[in-house]
Amino acid sequence: MSEQRFGAGIWHFATYVDRYATDGYGEPRTILDAIELAGQVDDLSVVDLNWPFFGGDISDDDVSKALDKAGLGVIGITPEIYTRQFSKGSFTNPDPGVRRLAHEFVTRSCDVVRKFGADYVKLWPGQDGWDYPFQVDHGTLWQHSIEGVGQLAAENPDLTFVIEYKPREPRVHMSYSSVARTLLGIEKIGLPNVGILLDFGHALFGGESPADSAQLAIDHGRLFGMDVNDNLRGWDDDMIAGTVHPIELFEFFWTLHKNNWEGVWQLDQFPFREDSVAAANLAIDFLKRVQKGLAVLDVEGLKQAQAAHDAVAAQRIAQNALFGS
Amino acid sequence: MSEQRFGAGIWHFATYVDRYATDGYGEPRTILDAIELAGQVDDLSVVDLNWPFFGGDISDDDVSKALDKAGLGVIGITPEIYTRQFSKGSFTNPDPGVRRLAHEFVTRSCDVVRKFGADYVKLWPGQDGWDYPFQVDHGTLWQHSIEGVGQLAAENPDLTFVIEYKPREPRVHMSYSSVARTLLGIEKIGLPNVGILLDFGHALFGGESPADSAQLAIDHGRLFGMDVNDNLRGWDDDMIAGTVHPIELFEFFWTLHKNNWEGVWQLDQFPFREDSVAAANLAIDFLKRVQKGLAVLDVEGLKQAQAAHDAVAAQRIAQNALFGS
Amino acid sequence: MSEQRFGAGIWHFATYVDRYATDGYGEPRTILDAIELAGQVDDLSVVDLNWPFFGGDISDDDVSKALDKAGLGVIGITPEIYTRQFSKGSFTNPDPGVRRLAHEFVTRSCDVVRKFGADYVKLWPGQDGWDYPFQVDHGTLWQHSIEGVGQLAAENPDLTFVIEYKPREPRVHMSYSSVARTLLGIEKIGLPNVGILLDFGHALFGGESPADSAQLAIDHGRLFGMDVNDNLRGWDDDMIAGTVHPIELFEFFWTLHKNNWEGVWQLDQFPFREDSVAAANLAIDFLKRVQKGLAVLDVEGLKQAQAAHDAVAAQRIAQNALFGS
Amino acid sequence: MSEQRFGAGIWHFATYVDRYATDGYGEPRTILDAIELAGQVDDLSVVDLNWPFFGGDISDDDVSKALDKAGLGVIGITPEIYTRQFSKGSFTNPDPGVRRLAHEFVTRSCDVVRKFGADYVKLWPGQDGWDYPFQVDHGTLWQHSIEGVGQLAAENPDLTFVIEYKPREPRVHMSYSSVARTLLGIEKIGLPNVGILLDFGHALFGGESPADSAQLAIDHGRLFGMDVNDNLRGWDDDMIAGTVHPIELFEFFWTLHKNNWEGVWQLDQFPFREDSVAAANLAIDFLKRVQKGLAVLDVEGLKQAQAAHDAVAAQRIAQNALFGS
Repeated sequence: MSEQRFGAGIWHFATYVDRYATDGYGEPRTILDAIELAGQVDDLSVVDLNWPFFGGDISDDDVSKALDKAGLGVIGITPEIYTRQFSKGSFTNPDPGVRRLAHEFVTRSCDVVRKFGADYVKLWPGQDGWDYPFQVDHGTLWQHSIEGVGQLAAENPDLTFVIEYKPREPRVHMSYSSVARTLLGIEKIGLPNVGILLDFGHALFGGESPADSAQLAIDHGRLFGMDVNDNLRGWDDDMIAGTVHPIELFEFFWTLHKNNWEGVWQLDQFPFREDSVAAANLAIDFLKRVQKGLAVLDVEGLKQAQAAHDAVAAQRIAQNALFGS
Repeated sequence: MSEQRFGAGIWHFATYVDRYATDGYGEPRTILDAIELAGQVDDLSVVDLNWPFFGGDISDDDVSKALDKAGLGVIGITPEIYTRQFSKGSFTNPDPGVRRLAHEFVTRSCDVVRKFGADYVKLWPGQDGWDYPFQVDHGTLWQHSIEGVGQLAAENPDLTFVIEYKPREPRVHMSYSSVARTLLGIEKIGLPNVGILLDFGHALFGGESPADSAQLAIDHGRLFGMDVNDNLRGWDDDMIAGTVHPIELFEFFWTLHKNNWEGVWQLDQFPFREDSVAAANLAIDFLKRVQKGLAVLDVEGLKQAQAAHDAVAAQRIAQNALFGS
Repeated sequence: MSEQRFGAGIWHFATYVDRYATDGYGEPRTILDAIELAGQVDDLSVVDLNWPFFGGDISDDDVSKALDKAGLGVIGITPEIYTRQFSKGSFTNPDPGVRRLAHEFVTRSCDVVRKFGADYVKLWPGQDGWDYPFQVDHGTLWQHSIEGVGQLAAENPDLTFVIEYKPREPRVHMSYSSVARTLLGIEKIGLPNVGILLDFGHALFGGESPADSAQLAIDHGRLFGMDVNDNLRGWDDDMIAGTVHPIELFEFFWTLHKNNWEGVWQLDQFPFREDSVAAANLAIDFLKRVQKGLAVLDVEGLKQAQAAHDAVAAQRIAQNALFGS
Repeated sequence: MSEQRFGAGIWHFATYVDRYATDGYGEPRTILDAIELAGQVDDLSVVDLNWPFFGGDISDDDVSKALDKAGLGVIGITPEIYTRQFSKGSFTNPDPGVRRLAHEFVTRSCDVVRKFGADYVKLWPGQDGWDYPFQVDHGTLWQHSIEGVGQLAAENPDLTFVIEYKPREPRVHMSYSSVARTLLGIEKIGLPNVGILLDFGHALFGGESPADSAQLAIDHGRLFGMDVNDNLRGWDDDMIAGTVHPIELFEFFWTLHKNNWEGVWQLDQFPFREDSVAAANLAIDFLKRVQKGLAVLDVEGLKQAQAAHDAVAAQRIAQNALFGS
């Protein structure tokens, strides 16, 4: 078995609120609590940290110590550009003052990336978009989406920025909505330090085949990160990876593998009602099934089947590798 | 113009949190604040009140006074059987202690209904369902869904209970998921004081034609309430009524009208980023367009078109009535 | 391994047309050709036959001989109540003459059921429904849906009728659209010889959990038949069973198993571009994985997990059974 | 009222088959029959013609005469690269021989474009894509998609090629699936004579906001054509324009209008069970409502509302313009 590293968004180990359970699905946790829980997962190496650190007045040092104790590194920092002040958008907010605020806010998070030696600033502008027909001027909105990210990338050439696209939620339409739309924006930005963080579930939710999305991002030289979970294709359910779509998940990792993409395999799950550690362990155990499946996959047979677009032969090979023959 | 009464869920005038904007889409409001805002809507007669009253230690008297001042009556009480303590279900919770708690909780809300002279207890068991394949024994879960409502209805024969079904959210699958499923459950309960509160948007989201859902519930003698909003058919967006699907909304009201269903036309909207009062006014203004449309609809022509399933003729008649000829 | 019998709709072995490839996805085949192909599948016992027999002037005897030669029995007869003459509906056609024609047509197919000793008449009224808002009077349409089936069941008490529901296609809304709607109709009919044929993919497409749908139909004493396939949840793709949703398929069969439901496991697949025999073999091989999984499933552990609604534990048990531990 | 020209795909006036009504939804019609019907629509100027001409051995001259008699011009030619021979793909077919055939076939259609003086060759590679996980090598498939169109555009610099994207159908995943994906491909091709034909319903079906899709294509200088229809967002229903989503249709045309996009307003409808001429008239009458709405739209008010992302104000302005104030 290879030395594949596994990671997770630290929010995996938080508790959540939604518009109904406004008192939360559990007692609030600080990011330090969450890091401690993450440390209990059997095989986790790195985490992606929301910033500012949730749960009170918590310093970088506090976090560093907690990470050390838990044996975890930092892969990315996710500035929270989707809270109340940005509820009408961060980069695309109608108010230029709030757009500046978003810029300054992410700029400050860049220093956190540097301090923790993380791989990237993760941008998930979930409030950037629109809800209603006629609500926005679409050309302007997209222009702001591009400029907002572009300015940050230009000003911080030492850092890498990844955009995590999603079709929608919390906005009814999100601006960076699909792999192709995001690549189109990145091409327009034209800088080397902007790429995609591809969320398997967001691709499924958007009607994409995640394996195809990965290949497209790779072919554009822009697949800078990824994470996995599962859903029912109609919403970003952030369920445990492997529980609904094991075969497409396998195809996704096969695509990474054959392109020699060697990054961290991350989880982006929201176990609202589940034990966080158990949910992470189940997912990672499934990812280890995937690893084993890749090791025994009949690569030559698969290539022949794919050359003929022979779905039956290709599926048989994939099933035999993943489920045993 | 008829004396149609309009209503709204009081949450229309609250602010909201979700899993991203955990600090909320605005300053928290008490139910008294919300009632005051509701009173500013141009043409609103009644509200449906969440219970317990949100925003602190607020008495029935406080609420009564606020309602009087705002000129509003109470149509229903919605016990919050979807907060943290019920996050794994209310009537279907795996823990019998929590199921009892849900029962006692709703029982207490019955007294609130009596005190305010409301029309019904509204049951929206949004946490009753399941998320994952293999998670539950489906037969037991459905049995609990039926028993939970049935016991309440049997114990409170002086009151009316309405079930508001929805396909999903916050659960990935909700137990009372569709109009037909709910009617099937109600038939099994077999009591006269249980009916449906039909949410136009939930029907759309579930792939139903809301007009058909309304007719089915009426034909079973179980349409006890309704509310409207709009969405993109893939989620319960709770957008402003009339902004996306005006024609199906018109058909829905036509169905109520031709069956002489004479209840309140209610709003169930979540204006996350909009002014609550303006959002309610826009919706009610559209509902008045609907009223005018019903007044000029070529009923004979429509019946002939429908007798022939003639979509073109029927649509032309409907468009002319709603949009002008 | 048990003596589970496998079946298939004979159309699995036909070729298809659609609105684009109007010249078909392959050379036309007669039902005799299709039977011969079905006979080449490794482990197939019975077929469901479209009636009239497609491909020309083919007698019952011709079909009997072909079946004998292929070693196949007949589980059901599917009268084609969805061709041109019924394109505006069979039981719900606006023209009473066509409704009578549908009745006579199905009545004639009853004799074919008797002649072949099949288990049931399968009713799939795919053209019964509506496309546009305002097109139909929904109460009348549903009444016709119920009366059409009810009359047939009353007149043929020696036979069993199964209704195969589907949300839509070719109609934008199909009248028998969901498991609950169909059960509601069957209860209204009130005869013992009408039940459901549950198509796994139709349930998925309708946003149902197929295991839950099966349990509901069983609890109403109405699960008279089933078939499987797969899809992406947004359409009735009729793909090869097991290729997209293996875990939910496993849960579906677990539900049948624990209820001692002992019917034929049938395929309803449309291999537009695949070799029919290979597609059937791949599906049945997956179903044999399911059988093996059921044999090793930790039933006690699962029951405990389900009693607690413990998704993680339940999934781990299910994955270990299906994929190996 | 302006001199807006209206058009339609000639298939609007054909009859259809699908996988159920294999005998068709009506008597077969030749393209000459269809042209005659198109000529009966009240206000139609141009048509898009499938090629080869359907219905038998029909010459260019036959078609010319029919068009003259009907008073119709030709806007585009649609080579049928989605029939049996291309059922596993045209530009992306696994067989290089079939890919060459597709190339030659479209090349021949170029001469038809020249002969009729049409505006463009319309490419709708509906069979180019995949159905199953693991079926294809995604990088190769996309490469073939780009090369196929690029070669044609390079070889025929005097002509314009438009790609009509769609998420799926008949393929489970179509290669040119979204506006952004198609623009990404077109940028890669890098030739001036390739653009997008934007189908309103395909955009809706793909989860796009059609107005946003139009703006994006315009901003890339690639909106070369458009057509409209309607659907329920979950499938390419090709229903009559304006019957389900009038407001988003209005926003779509507003976007064209404010960008001074001055092409033909075309219909791409499939009236399976409706009178073709009546269906076209109803749609065009709705488009004339749109024209009137654009004429009275409070443009300044809308711009202010959009500058603030004020959904309520913007919607009120739009509704007043379209439905009357």
